[in-house]
Amino acid sequence: MARRSVPHDVADLGLAEQGRARIEWSDRGMPVLRSIRERFAADRPLDGLKISACMHITTETANLMRTLHEGGAHVRIAASNPLSTQDDTAAALVGEYGISVFARYRSDRAAYQRSIDATLAVPPEIVLDDACDLVTALHTDYTDLLPGVRGGCEETTTGVVRLRAMAAAGALRYPVVAVTDSPTKHLFDNRYGTGQSTVDALLRSTNMLLAGATVVVAGFGHVGRGVAERLAGMGARVLVTEVDPARALDAVLVGYTVLPMADAARVGDVFVTVSGNRDVIGPSHFKLMKDGAVIANAGHFDIEVDAAWLVENAVAHRARVRPNVDEFVMSDGRRLMLLAEGRVANLAAAEGHPASVMDISFAVQALTVEWLLNGGAPAGGGVLEVPAEIDREVARLKLAAFGVEIDTLTDAQAAYLTSWD
Amino acid sequence: MARRSVPHDVADLGLAEQGRARIEWSDRGMPVLRSIRERFAADRPLDGLKISACMHITTETANLMRTLHEGGAHVRIAASNPLSTQDDTAAALVGEYGISVFARYRSDRAAYQRSIDATLAVPPEIVLDDACDLVTALHTDYTDLLPGVRGGCEETTTGVVRLRAMAAAGALRYPVVAVTDSPTKHLFDNRYGTGQSTVDALLRSTNMLLAGATVVVAGFGHVGRGVAERLAGMGARVLVTEVDPARALDAVLVGYTVLPMADAARVGDVFVTVSGNRDVIGPSHFKLMKDGAVIANAGHFDIEVDAAWLVENAVAHRARVRPNVDEFVMSDGRRLMLLAEGRVANLAAAEGHPASVMDISFAVQALTVEWLLNGGAPAGGGVLEVPAEIDREVARLKLAAFGVEIDTLTDAQAAYLTSWD
Amino acid sequence: MARRSVPHDVADLGLAEQGRARIEWSDRGMPVLRSIRERFAADRPLDGLKISACMHITTETANLMRTLHEGGAHVRIAASNPLSTQDDTAAALVGEYGISVFARYRSDRAAYQRSIDATLAVPPEIVLDDACDLVTALHTDYTDLLPGVRGGCEETTTGVVRLRAMAAAGALRYPVVAVTDSPTKHLFDNRYGTGQSTVDALLRSTNMLLAGATVVVAGFGHVGRGVAERLAGMGARVLVTEVDPARALDAVLVGYTVLPMADAARVGDVFVTVSGNRDVIGPSHFKLMKDGAVIANAGHFDIEVDAAWLVENAVAHRARVRPNVDEFVMSDGRRLMLLAEGRVANLAAAEGHPASVMDISFAVQALTVEWLLNGGAPAGGGVLEVPAEIDREVARLKLAAFGVEIDTLTDAQAAYLTSWD
Amino acid sequence: MARRSVPHDVADLGLAEQGRARIEWSDRGMPVLRSIRERFAADRPLDGLKISACMHITTETANLMRTLHEGGAHVRIAASNPLSTQDDTAAALVGEYGISVFARYRSDRAAYQRSIDATLAVPPEIVLDDACDLVTALHTDYTDLLPGVRGGCEETTTGVVRLRAMAAAGALRYPVVAVTDSPTKHLFDNRYGTGQSTVDALLRSTNMLLAGATVVVAGFGHVGRGVAERLAGMGARVLVTEVDPARALDAVLVGYTVLPMADAARVGDVFVTVSGNRDVIGPSHFKLMKDGAVIANAGHFDIEVDAAWLVENAVAHRARVRPNVDEFVMSDGRRLMLLAEGRVANLAAAEGHPASVMDISFAVQALTVEWLLNGGAPAGGGVLEVPAEIDREVARLKLAAFGVEIDTLTDAQAAYLTSWD
Repeated sequence: MARRSVPHDVADLGLAEQGRARIEWSDRGMPVLRSIRERFAADRPLDGLKISACMHITTETANLMRTLHEGGAHVRIAASNPLSTQDDTAAALVGEYGISVFARYRSDRAAYQRSIDATLAVPPEIVLDDACDLVTALHTDYTDLLPGVRGGCEETTTGVVRLRAMAAAGALRYPVVAVTDSPTKHLFDNRYGTGQSTVDALLRSTNMLLAGATVVVAGFGHVGRGVAERLAGMGARVLVTEVDPARALDAVLVGYTVLPMADAARVGDVFVTVSGNRDVIGPSHFKLMKDGAVIANAGHFDIEVDAAWLVENAVAHRARVRPNVDEFVMSDGRRLMLLAEGRVANLAAAEGHPASVMDISFAVQALTVEWLLNGGAPAGGGVLEVPAEIDREVARLKLAAFGVEIDTLTDAQAAYLTSWD
Repeated sequence: MARRSVPHDVADLGLAEQGRARIEWSDRGMPVLRSIRERFAADRPLDGLKISACMHITTETANLMRTLHEGGAHVRIAASNPLSTQDDTAAALVGEYGISVFARYRSDRAAYQRSIDATLAVPPEIVLDDACDLVTALHTDYTDLLPGVRGGCEETTTGVVRLRAMAAAGALRYPVVAVTDSPTKHLFDNRYGTGQSTVDALLRSTNMLLAGATVVVAGFGHVGRGVAERLAGMGARVLVTEVDPARALDAVLVGYTVLPMADAARVGDVFVTVSGNRDVIGPSHFKLMKDGAVIANAGHFDIEVDAAWLVENAVAHRARVRPNVDEFVMSDGRRLMLLAEGRVANLAAAEGHPASVMDISFAVQALTVEWLLNGGAPAGGGVLEVPAEIDREVARLKLAAFGVEIDTLTDAQAAYLTSWD
Repeated sequence: MARRSVPHDVADLGLAEQGRARIEWSDRGMPVLRSIRERFAADRPLDGLKISACMHITTETANLMRTLHEGGAHVRIAASNPLSTQDDTAAALVGEYGISVFARYRSDRAAYQRSIDATLAVPPEIVLDDACDLVTALHTDYTDLLPGVRGGCEETTTGVVRLRAMAAAGALRYPVVAVTDSPTKHLFDNRYGTGQSTVDALLRSTNMLLAGATVVVAGFGHVGRGVAERLAGMGARVLVTEVDPARALDAVLVGYTVLPMADAARVGDVFVTVSGNRDVIGPSHFKLMKDGAVIANAGHFDIEVDAAWLVENAVAHRARVRPNVDEFVMSDGRRLMLLAEGRVANLAAAEGHPASVMDISFAVQALTVEWLLNGGAPAGGGVLEVPAEIDREVARLKLAAFGVEIDTLTDAQAAYLTSWD
Repeated sequence: MARRSVPHDVADLGLAEQGRARIEWSDRGMPVLRSIRERFAADRPLDGLKISACMHITTETANLMRTLHEGGAHVRIAASNPLSTQDDTAAALVGEYGISVFARYRSDRAAYQRSIDATLAVPPEIVLDDACDLVTALHTDYTDLLPGVRGGCEETTTGVVRLRAMAAAGALRYPVVAVTDSPTKHLFDNRYGTGQSTVDALLRSTNMLLAGATVVVAGFGHVGRGVAERLAGMGARVLVTEVDPARALDAVLVGYTVLPMADAARVGDVFVTVSGNRDVIGPSHFKLMKDGAVIANAGHFDIEVDAAWLVENAVAHRARVRPNVDEFVMSDGRRLMLLAEGRVANLAAAEGHPASVMDISFAVQALTVEWLLNGGAPAGGGVLEVPAEIDREVARLKLAAFGVEIDTLTDAQAAYLTSWD
């Protein structure tokens, strides 16, 4: 097939058919994105648009790429994290759908750089990011491409924090929509998606009983709240650590025990970091932990837990005592169990968000790409919110998929809400 | 005492001592406001400031008034809702603390107007509102006072919606801080406060078993979420109605059943309106309800439930079959039970928010008054958010009151959060 | 009316009409007992039966008495706890329904003894107890009446423990059905009823915010579990103390923090005793508690908390700082708040179980009286379980009242469950 | 090693080392059984005892077998369910621990019969069963061995129902302890264990979002309650079907929607059968289900869902569209997804109970074997409860493993509980 001639670098094109089956399974869980894809295929609103993306290469991402592709766009995509790359998905995107992918599972730093280069080999008009990889590349090594970029999307909270810092410093050169700040996306992705997939990662990795376990959740933003809710829902005793007083107070009011990590370290059976910050768990905490403590990171990067210290300082390191579990023996004999080498456990040790979660996030992205193309964004390097009408439209489509009907405002009620005299 | 000579209109000054005891009990639950009062009393930052307020006359409001008064302000206050006025509290404010109050329990419309007039008899510099009563008076009958107003606070979501409409129409003439939008206040007041006090109102009024009862919550904003959480926590089966797709979706993901009111009306044992809108439950719903259905409004005004229709159309109306419960017999024999005449049940049939909830809200107000006086607000008629530093300061003080310690960012962490290169 | 001539000792017969209105309100919440009463009124299965009872004099108890009375029985009833006696209910039973009551609110020990005497003045055939008052009287002062007693019911777990001890010692002289051990009664009464009414008592007495409060529940039997569930449902952080390893383990698995009372005493904001034992909270704990700690007993007697120590040792005792709240000032200035003088708070400071809870318990009692009369019990002094068919019948009637339909076993399924070859 | 010479029939002894690593991992989660094993190894209380077992061949079962073996017993074990057999575990038991195993993954009916024969080739004194396989064999084909059997244990509720029927019919010939009825085992195994592993099975098989999904739980016994709790804890909307009125009422009071399966079938996104009965979901329900409905059995046998009907009547059957998911296309195009072919999903599609759950169950079994050997059981064919002292001892050991301390009764309290005069 002519399709197979698109530029690519994937592990094994022979996995394409298997990947296609999994992509189609995901598609069942993505009714909102599917309805958008059907409209895009009919109307071709993105005809000829050049898109570069750097995202997790999963079956759900594949369905977003299909949607943009069927809308007429030329898409190139690299992997934002080599541990989350699914080789069969990558193969299917290339071999079955004719989309350029540059990604291999567990590739090294040099390969990552080559994939970024390949993704930007065609100057993009729209840039899709999952933690600023392309933003960073464009603002350092590829500044010559910046004038052609009409806008971008950023998927992670961590990335948005960075973008705001860039914008505040006057350094950001094109408008980026903070997809992660969409209220509907928040709900599904940060809160319910990561909540469930973190439980999934813990169960698959350890098969430990969560009921009665003392679990320390580091960070009580949207993601931390979701993780705490699900762990409490599984019967765990949840302790929360935070640096922000308002979030800490919120955790107290839900009924969680809130305390500093130095105190939590002594009593936790499981630790989950979701703070979006670095070194939330480090040497001073490792020294206090109980024998058998399990440590997982469900934040973005692999910097929340100081895994490097464990590798360097443990008297023994038994890799993969179970899949995705490394055991580190401390000098006093205590054993600490690290999931997925400290990388994002819910992606690396489970399957990431369920399709129906990514359905929301990627439906927002697809509609935002269309909106950027139609000139929705003001010029200049700002960080923009998802337009409210996109958020509402996605919520409406999702409710319909759930089969849920809701009330509508009567004219008298709508008038009341905006009246004041 | 000279104190008693302040202008006032209250039911019975003889209740002052009883009121003082209750105000002091509340004060135990308001450690944050108390610490601010102690600072205000020492520093007198509001010396000579003229403040007019229209709020619920409760023991917690009294502690806010004491705080402003001890900070040096001259305060006049009317009741935003005559059903929530506590006559002993009003008496104590006048007789024990020397603050001008114009409020009597269950006063009529004319008395309300007189109380507004009295409250504005001294032209205010700062205006404190609990659903736009004074804003409305100042923008209609008292426009001559507008130039002297430096700013205001609005306590309710309903009021803020109205203020935004005014601001959008260019009609708002002074800056108003939307206290209700403070993240910390949201938590305590809208979510946890109303959630608990609605349960309290249902229990005191009906003593019905909530476990296993089907409860319909109309509206899933912050208040609706809080009410739903607490009712679910009491074992009720919670159904939610909404008009906003994103909120409806949120309710679905929590696990509630979401449906139109026309369907919910047939199956609910209890109905609680918290939508901030009018006629959420009306004749078409009354006709479908089960015998014995209980209807309570926990939104702001008495317009969410069309109580007037019941009064006019019921074949029998038995007032106060239990305290705060009116029974309406329909023509087909079904009996509907309305709490507190459709007025705000958690205020009228319980004691309103616990002191520790209002502690947050009123601490924010006290600090915001100081901030407005210090020129914090930009000129002109905008609706402003509570300054983030006030919100954070209140959260910090409240955590301290809970005895909770939290982590602080290391320099490396703080740097990481704002870095991008 | 001739009715008013029945022997009685109540506070004020003038309260009878008010009492009747409240009894009829309760009756709305007791559909199961009502359906039994209708059958009893038609068939008179208890015609001429002499019943003595010692129970809480509440509107729900009144509906049980009406049911037995309409079934043809001659009933005499005393109050098992003078603090729970509702004078209007007592008056209505006498004046409106013609039933002999000997009970006054807050009567003293001597009056209690006179009421027991009056209740046993007609030798009973059936005895209804709520913590062994009549059992004890019959086995000590009234042993001559024992031969005439055909059987009894005991409503409380505490009472059943005592009865089993008596039976084991060969001292129990008539068969007593442990109503409290009925699975269906357990659910409603011990777990859901006390759970809700304890929340109610805390809210009415203190109006404190339960969300975020640290609440210590002493005892994790059926009642303790119910109290813990409801408090957690209100947002409290629940700590549990226990003496039984299996119950303690259960609490751990639900996710509660389990610890000894000596540790809990230091951190609790609220303490609720539901252990069924004495001195669960005593001097050694009072000395550790925080300023402002609230102590409530929701167990049976007033012995779970050593209130007498507080009365004797506090440097100040301020009674009723709020209704049902006494403040005790310790020598170091800490203030401890005791609800309802350490008596059963959910009865004394709230309204006891909702009618629909007692509906179950009293429907079981009514059917058990009929079963005892029909010779259901073996002779001799045993403690008997509620017959399974009574339990199932009551559950079936209650589900019907909830409007819930369930599946039935097919013949093949019923056969499968009992097959083995 | 001499060890390898024990009689056996396993798939591949080469897997022994891998199996040993996994068995030792499980052992970390089984501190109670481990402490018993250490005592058994020291004291050899089972020296020479002949035990036959038919159980799931998992790493946790392996640790029970090790415990009995180290206590001195000669153990032979077959697999109660070929789908749950872990070949590496079987290999390790034979090759690493010298225990006779007759079990291969996915073996057929004939192989099952051979394994039973081999297990009974040495006449047993103690019999351990997991749904009556050996009981049945002994009472049909091996009646000559019955005189030598001193007693047995049965692990499942389903098995105990059958045993009680046998005992009632006078057919049971030796005493069997109903391990499943141990209160502590109930908690961990039926409620928390199956609850968690059912969530695990659903996530691994489908990766669907449980938040907002409508899940129908068929059966509300201990297992059903646990499954419902965990699914609600994951954000699902839980509907319950039941045939027993008291259990149905319980589910209503928790706040679940209770309804007949014929109604639930139309609205469920997921169905989980835990009724312990046959044909709970059959053709009449399949016809009503939504496109994409997921069906899982977490009861004992593969008879709760009429999978055979699906195989025969679907117009298409796509096996393993994901691991452990079969898709059946109905004649009207709807697709139904069956997990694990209708067999026990939490065993077949997840890893069964966490080790710490089986720790309880198997600690009870180990102590019960010792108790049976010491003549604890009365002679004859009764179904016995686990002795209370064993239950309490296991709970005490488990609390210690959790690091939880509890209170102990004072003498005065112990006296109070047994006093009555």
